[in-house]
Amino acid sequence: MIDAVLDKLKEECGVFGIYSPQEDVSLFTYWGLYALQHRGQESAGIAVTDGSWMDVHRGMGLVNEVFRHQLPRMDRQRIAIGHVRYSTTGSSLLANTQPLMVTYAGGHISLAHNGNLTNASELRTELEQAGSVFQTSIDSEVFVNLIARSRNHSIEEKIMDSLNKIQGAYCLVLMTEEKLVGVRDPHGFRPLCLGKVGAGWVIASESCALDTVGAEFVRDIEPGEMVVIDDSGLKSYRFAPANKRALCIFEYIYFARPDSVIDGQSVHAARFEMGRMLARESGFTADIVISVPDSGTTAALGFSHESRIPFMEGLMKNRYIGRTFIQPEQKKRDLSVRLKLNAVKSVVKGRSVIMVDDSIVRGTTSGKIVRMLKEAGATAVHMCVSSPPIGFPCYYGIDTSVRKELIAASKQVEEIREYIGADSLHFLSLQGLWDSVGGVHSEDMCHACFSCKYPASIPCEASCASNKYVFEERRNQA
Amino acid sequence: MIDAVLDKLKEECGVFGIYSPQEDVSLFTYWGLYALQHRGQESAGIAVTDGSWMDVHRGMGLVNEVFRHQLPRMDRQRIAIGHVRYSTTGSSLLANTQPLMVTYAGGHISLAHNGNLTNASELRTELEQAGSVFQTSIDSEVFVNLIARSRNHSIEEKIMDSLNKIQGAYCLVLMTEEKLVGVRDPHGFRPLCLGKVGAGWVIASESCALDTVGAEFVRDIEPGEMVVIDDSGLKSYRFAPANKRALCIFEYIYFARPDSVIDGQSVHAARFEMGRMLARESGFTADIVISVPDSGTTAALGFSHESRIPFMEGLMKNRYIGRTFIQPEQKKRDLSVRLKLNAVKSVVKGRSVIMVDDSIVRGTTSGKIVRMLKEAGATAVHMCVSSPPIGFPCYYGIDTSVRKELIAASKQVEEIREYIGADSLHFLSLQGLWDSVGGVHSEDMCHACFSCKYPASIPCEASCASNKYVFEERRNQA
Amino acid sequence: MIDAVLDKLKEECGVFGIYSPQEDVSLFTYWGLYALQHRGQESAGIAVTDGSWMDVHRGMGLVNEVFRHQLPRMDRQRIAIGHVRYSTTGSSLLANTQPLMVTYAGGHISLAHNGNLTNASELRTELEQAGSVFQTSIDSEVFVNLIARSRNHSIEEKIMDSLNKIQGAYCLVLMTEEKLVGVRDPHGFRPLCLGKVGAGWVIASESCALDTVGAEFVRDIEPGEMVVIDDSGLKSYRFAPANKRALCIFEYIYFARPDSVIDGQSVHAARFEMGRMLARESGFTADIVISVPDSGTTAALGFSHESRIPFMEGLMKNRYIGRTFIQPEQKKRDLSVRLKLNAVKSVVKGRSVIMVDDSIVRGTTSGKIVRMLKEAGATAVHMCVSSPPIGFPCYYGIDTSVRKELIAASKQVEEIREYIGADSLHFLSLQGLWDSVGGVHSEDMCHACFSCKYPASIPCEASCASNKYVFEERRNQA
Amino acid sequence: MIDAVLDKLKEECGVFGIYSPQEDVSLFTYWGLYALQHRGQESAGIAVTDGSWMDVHRGMGLVNEVFRHQLPRMDRQRIAIGHVRYSTTGSSLLANTQPLMVTYAGGHISLAHNGNLTNASELRTELEQAGSVFQTSIDSEVFVNLIARSRNHSIEEKIMDSLNKIQGAYCLVLMTEEKLVGVRDPHGFRPLCLGKVGAGWVIASESCALDTVGAEFVRDIEPGEMVVIDDSGLKSYRFAPANKRALCIFEYIYFARPDSVIDGQSVHAARFEMGRMLARESGFTADIVISVPDSGTTAALGFSHESRIPFMEGLMKNRYIGRTFIQPEQKKRDLSVRLKLNAVKSVVKGRSVIMVDDSIVRGTTSGKIVRMLKEAGATAVHMCVSSPPIGFPCYYGIDTSVRKELIAASKQVEEIREYIGADSLHFLSLQGLWDSVGGVHSEDMCHACFSCKYPASIPCEASCASNKYVFEERRNQA
Repeated sequence: MIDAVLDKLKEECGVFGIYSPQEDVSLFTYWGLYALQHRGQESAGIAVTDGSWMDVHRGMGLVNEVFRHQLPRMDRQRIAIGHVRYSTTGSSLLANTQPLMVTYAGGHISLAHNGNLTNASELRTELEQAGSVFQTSIDSEVFVNLIARSRNHSIEEKIMDSLNKIQGAYCLVLMTEEKLVGVRDPHGFRPLCLGKVGAGWVIASESCALDTVGAEFVRDIEPGEMVVIDDSGLKSYRFAPANKRALCIFEYIYFARPDSVIDGQSVHAARFEMGRMLARESGFTADIVISVPDSGTTAALGFSHESRIPFMEGLMKNRYIGRTFIQPEQKKRDLSVRLKLNAVKSVVKGRSVIMVDDSIVRGTTSGKIVRMLKEAGATAVHMCVSSPPIGFPCYYGIDTSVRKELIAASKQVEEIREYIGADSLHFLSLQGLWDSVGGVHSEDMCHACFSCKYPASIPCEASCASNKYVFEERRNQA
Repeated sequence: MIDAVLDKLKEECGVFGIYSPQEDVSLFTYWGLYALQHRGQESAGIAVTDGSWMDVHRGMGLVNEVFRHQLPRMDRQRIAIGHVRYSTTGSSLLANTQPLMVTYAGGHISLAHNGNLTNASELRTELEQAGSVFQTSIDSEVFVNLIARSRNHSIEEKIMDSLNKIQGAYCLVLMTEEKLVGVRDPHGFRPLCLGKVGAGWVIASESCALDTVGAEFVRDIEPGEMVVIDDSGLKSYRFAPANKRALCIFEYIYFARPDSVIDGQSVHAARFEMGRMLARESGFTADIVISVPDSGTTAALGFSHESRIPFMEGLMKNRYIGRTFIQPEQKKRDLSVRLKLNAVKSVVKGRSVIMVDDSIVRGTTSGKIVRMLKEAGATAVHMCVSSPPIGFPCYYGIDTSVRKELIAASKQVEEIREYIGADSLHFLSLQGLWDSVGGVHSEDMCHACFSCKYPASIPCEASCASNKYVFEERRNQA
Repeated sequence: MIDAVLDKLKEECGVFGIYSPQEDVSLFTYWGLYALQHRGQESAGIAVTDGSWMDVHRGMGLVNEVFRHQLPRMDRQRIAIGHVRYSTTGSSLLANTQPLMVTYAGGHISLAHNGNLTNASELRTELEQAGSVFQTSIDSEVFVNLIARSRNHSIEEKIMDSLNKIQGAYCLVLMTEEKLVGVRDPHGFRPLCLGKVGAGWVIASESCALDTVGAEFVRDIEPGEMVVIDDSGLKSYRFAPANKRALCIFEYIYFARPDSVIDGQSVHAARFEMGRMLARESGFTADIVISVPDSGTTAALGFSHESRIPFMEGLMKNRYIGRTFIQPEQKKRDLSVRLKLNAVKSVVKGRSVIMVDDSIVRGTTSGKIVRMLKEAGATAVHMCVSSPPIGFPCYYGIDTSVRKELIAASKQVEEIREYIGADSLHFLSLQGLWDSVGGVHSEDMCHACFSCKYPASIPCEASCASNKYVFEERRNQA
Repeated sequence: MIDAVLDKLKEECGVFGIYSPQEDVSLFTYWGLYALQHRGQESAGIAVTDGSWMDVHRGMGLVNEVFRHQLPRMDRQRIAIGHVRYSTTGSSLLANTQPLMVTYAGGHISLAHNGNLTNASELRTELEQAGSVFQTSIDSEVFVNLIARSRNHSIEEKIMDSLNKIQGAYCLVLMTEEKLVGVRDPHGFRPLCLGKVGAGWVIASESCALDTVGAEFVRDIEPGEMVVIDDSGLKSYRFAPANKRALCIFEYIYFARPDSVIDGQSVHAARFEMGRMLARESGFTADIVISVPDSGTTAALGFSHESRIPFMEGLMKNRYIGRTFIQPEQKKRDLSVRLKLNAVKSVVKGRSVIMVDDSIVRGTTSGKIVRMLKEAGATAVHMCVSSPPIGFPCYYGIDTSVRKELIAASKQVEEIREYIGADSLHFLSLQGLWDSVGGVHSEDMCHACFSCKYPASIPCEASCASNKYVFEERRNQA
């Protein structure tokens, strides 16, 4: 995947749901997932109901690959939910796609989930002790088992009963034959918003999906809130007391699309501000500002605006993204970046360059890009990163399987600069980052990957033996 | 499917299991399923374990289509089970393929199932009331939930505990990380046999699968018996008292392969005897005996042997079977049989013919074949059927979705003869059928589809509203 | 492929054509190819025209695989031709599928070809010298280039002009926008027949294809005859003088379907007679006669009829044929036959057996079957083969790539018997074979693979360096 | 396709060739085609040779789809060529993919072609009159027939002989078993450049492909030049006298990648200048400058640089391009743009906007984007287009099938402005365009689509009946 090639962290999922007897809800969900494709590119699925039956279609690949031949459709469909995800490796990949669709004593439920339960393992063990069986390795299956075992009567109570048992980061979109439900965890780690399309309602991970289907943005779903939509309209429930908010700050840095607005803050505006802040903090000067496209572009424009140094397109990105790309052999690894990015010689030749990127994970790609620019004639490359160094693992839905390779976990800034071969290197300070996201209070965001301050429980050691080294490392650093 | 075109009842499944650390158990299972392909042609699956992990691969299609590109394999694999099935219609076809693989408190279980639980619906409701969720519509999922909820300690006890709760017809092949288990229901509706290959063991629906993988036939698994194979060898358990045996007599008539031996009775020998019995009962004479290939051939040879009327190949069958075949348009329906069968003019022209087939379901195909033979010059067509008229539904694993169209449910023999245009028509008597299967006592077989004498419980009316008309019809006839 | 596994020679192609403005000619061609599937199982194609445009769809696989999703169709289609073939190995497989469709000065031509031109190589060189380019390695491309270069005016004359240049064995079905043309070479090596369906006409390799589409057999196309069908009806042309007829006698032994009639001789009747002749020639006696299904069955029945020894089904064949089948590893090669055939113990145990097969190519399979029968309890196996030993290569369309391995090229009958482990072995004599095919004069058939008497030119040495050893061997034997 | 949705003209092809016994030439060609993917997204192909054999693999789809499973490869491969293209509609799509591979009297030739021969139809007729047959509808097949019929001896002479017969726009990459050949037409309509990788040589449509494979740019291939590369190195031939140069100016406006350099002129620099020129010509002022991404971005940056009006990202583009995308129903057509583009409200709200795009074809998309911006709160939208109005068809390789719908063919600028709903509209003047491409003399470029001044022959009326209306319209306008 391109993000792997370009050394990015991976968001885990995007969710979408629509209640609208007047619309082709399956088609709308398809479009919605297309708008959320950046949040998960390895599998996709759509479930739909007509009030009595439910159908689901899931598959590996991009949205347009999974639904190349057909969408799941019903004659009188009125609710649909959808999901895009990165899947983990292993042989049961297809089994782990979402939405999950089950029957239980109360009928059918389909469920799509974004995030990571920190106590999934314990809950699963408890459920297994009580006689549950599991066919997948996704958290959603834990959740539906909790619902099915709840002794409460209404589906609303069953869900809230279950929510009280789970911990971690999650946004859920769930449907029964009659209701569409959206849930955001008490910390609000992941974004989830509400829109209106005609007489119907839409729930989505990001507002850009509302725009894409022509829905009007209504509001963000609150941390600890559950909305339930049915024939009688929308009802809001609070299943948890107001908690410490902890929206993932990386949504503003990289994950979300710039045209989305999350918790009242425009993603684009935040990134632009990060760039301005970088200019002020770094004090770098050069002939031009360039970006590592596409994720670094908005901050680079902000840098240019603040510093009055002209922004130019110094790097071109190949737009033709493929899931399977034949990799260069070992000895020609440098090509792997060149397949995705190319320097524009007429822009960089003979010029000193400020290069803006959103983050540094392993650092290998940054080094290759710096070399590419110098080979193209740049006289100096000053790198600016619109986030602080990433030094700690995420337990709330971001793939940190690369954690061992996080360059900032073992190297100081100057060492990193040397490693990537840049003439200067500046990371945005945490305070600078907070200030850039002016619309959300700094205490209402999670920044544990930079600060090691985890806003909520993290998995107990017993349940995450495989991450043991991470904990140990962290302690040693503490 | 060819069987649909040629008006046959459908067996529902075939199962296979192997325990052998010395062999490529996945490949052996693949071959075993290939030998059992006649028992189910719409999906296939293989699960394999190496003692700690389990993997499964399932798909729609014939065995060689599902495993065209790869078999599930592990480095030190030692147990594997497999399944072929006819799937019911609906959009969740893939979800319903077997083996089912789950985790529960005791580890992993994979399960393949042949037959039909008559109280599946009640059990499912009970389990749902207790908080279970279901992701498929197959009986196997009910069974694994029972196992998971059993309070007994050993897997053997858990399984037996669960078996005590289920009713109906079933053969199960199940594996944990360490054990291969084979179970045959107390009535022994469906066949299941045991073989030995090297130091390992094989369990299969029919003995032809043992022959195919080079295993030696050991014995049939007894009704009410469970065999458990692990490192310490094979252990046999009796989970139910000796019950009234009720082997499906249709296995001898049509379902099983002629080279299989079931409960000590050669299928081929039984069919040959049915033909001899038909000759004696019918007293028909003609120039030649022919069969409707391939299923009528053995009985036709028996008829020829008894009557001394020469057997000739009067009909040729197209050997190239395809799952998807573009059907003739409505107005040219007669072609649908001609695509599969063709009369050999040089054989039938100017001759009177005795045509032997194994059964008549709807009767439409028989009529077309009679017409085809007459157009090819047969002077008379006397039809002999090596089973009695089928008038009643099966609740033990045979697809009776065509029941409304069963010609014998509404027509007398003379009416059927007229409908299909034969000059004479004789159905083998039930007594004649029993006598033909000499190796098994007549009281040890189920013949309810002919006699309406159900040897075991049938689903209660509440749980089979969709079959209501069947019950009502049956009562009227009783 | 099953035929490879079961040690058979390979026919190269089947052709079909239909002219009928009243019918769905594409669908009829699809059915016709399905009936001819036994003549070629590795690729298939259909071309269709509506009088001005032409379209073609070709692919690798069985007919129902290639046309799983769609047939080539036009609104007012009125002519279609089709082709099934075995393809040679190499990377350009798809490019070599037929029908070939080209444009030339006179418009469009589509062409399907069965057989082998013995001077293709010389003609190709000549055409290349004159400036032609070739995109495939099939003989049909040579032929269309000859047509395109003919200076004659009418398409009929152009074709006949071209036919005068080519040598070897061929049946052609060809269409322009307005005409359907069928051609059979002057020796009549390969079969081709003519039928009528409603107001339209059908041309096919075998009469079974006429039966399948509901067409009435009219007559065989004569060696050296070209029929042209258009709006004004059917016209017959003789493009070559009456020549020595040389119909491939293997069509009667194995290639053709038993329900076909070729040059007035029923294939079934010929095979039945071969069996009777075998009984007389061999004088073998035993408890039962069995066949190697399916190709040996008709002769086995003839043997039984003549000898009064009862015919029984001693071997069962797995009906589920797959193009790709995962082969057993080297050390377990014996399984490869067991996957396809199984002995019926209740039939052969304790009995002496006469086993009838149609031919022996390498002899390896025969040996395995004999062993299988003995393991199943046969007290003796006397093998009868309904053709003489195959000792010489075919240059007229049969794949003799296995020639090096032809057992009869290097071993005497007694040595072969010993090799396969049979108690007795008898090959039908050439005279016996001729007598069996009573409807065609012995001098009107090609039997070079048995006798080395080639009825026509064979490729010059220069053009078949790769077959050089064959010639040398042949000379040494002569 | 996205380009269709976003109302763009279509380039027809990209070509690539490599001679390098030291490299994996097939893999390099794969990467090269990936870099040229923007020049053709509907089919791709690679041919490779090891000095004696040739192999080709072609298919429909993007490069990574066609070669998802494998590349054509040989043990000692040393030359490879590749092709990407837009294909025309019709049922023979696959047959028309390139490279074309043929055998002729001199051996094998593979050929990939970019452009359009204006006398292909006449040449084809001549060749057909002389007996050639054609299996595809691509110009390349005409060319290989000319080569095959040339009476000259060396391949170099044969090619030059053939080049003298053809007219129009073409870049050819061709290989024999031993030589790699690159040809650019005498006018130089399409770009073609030469690079060096290690001891080997690379030829490509654009220099960005050289960068991607790590090759060093050597020079552009001259109009009328043929380069031949073999074991003895590179030789250059001039097959036509220095002619009026006529490089397609649209390469600079839209077709080529900005990081390519064509005939000495950086594409990026040209586009940047177009933006500056637009600022000067239009005199527009507003709060911000935005672009229609991605093709309008470089010019927008130039506009911003010249005007000192800040550039902002007002529109976001969905990066996940799919070949097949389920289209909105008729009534919701406005969604089709929203699926690809979305306004960034925080950027445009309450601001007047200058929107820069590269061209207007039908005008429908521009109208939707203007509306989208206004709905997002833009107070005014002033549109600037970095090319003059397109009023005339192209005969040199650009798809003008949309010509009937060219908005500038029937509307004046003010009418267009009204149609798209912009507050102002300015098209770059032809002189301004020429001045922007400062590195190439204005007389050395083709600008017929703007000016109707065709630099070379156009197809005679007889051969382009289907374009008749175009000619008539043009005359009326002249």
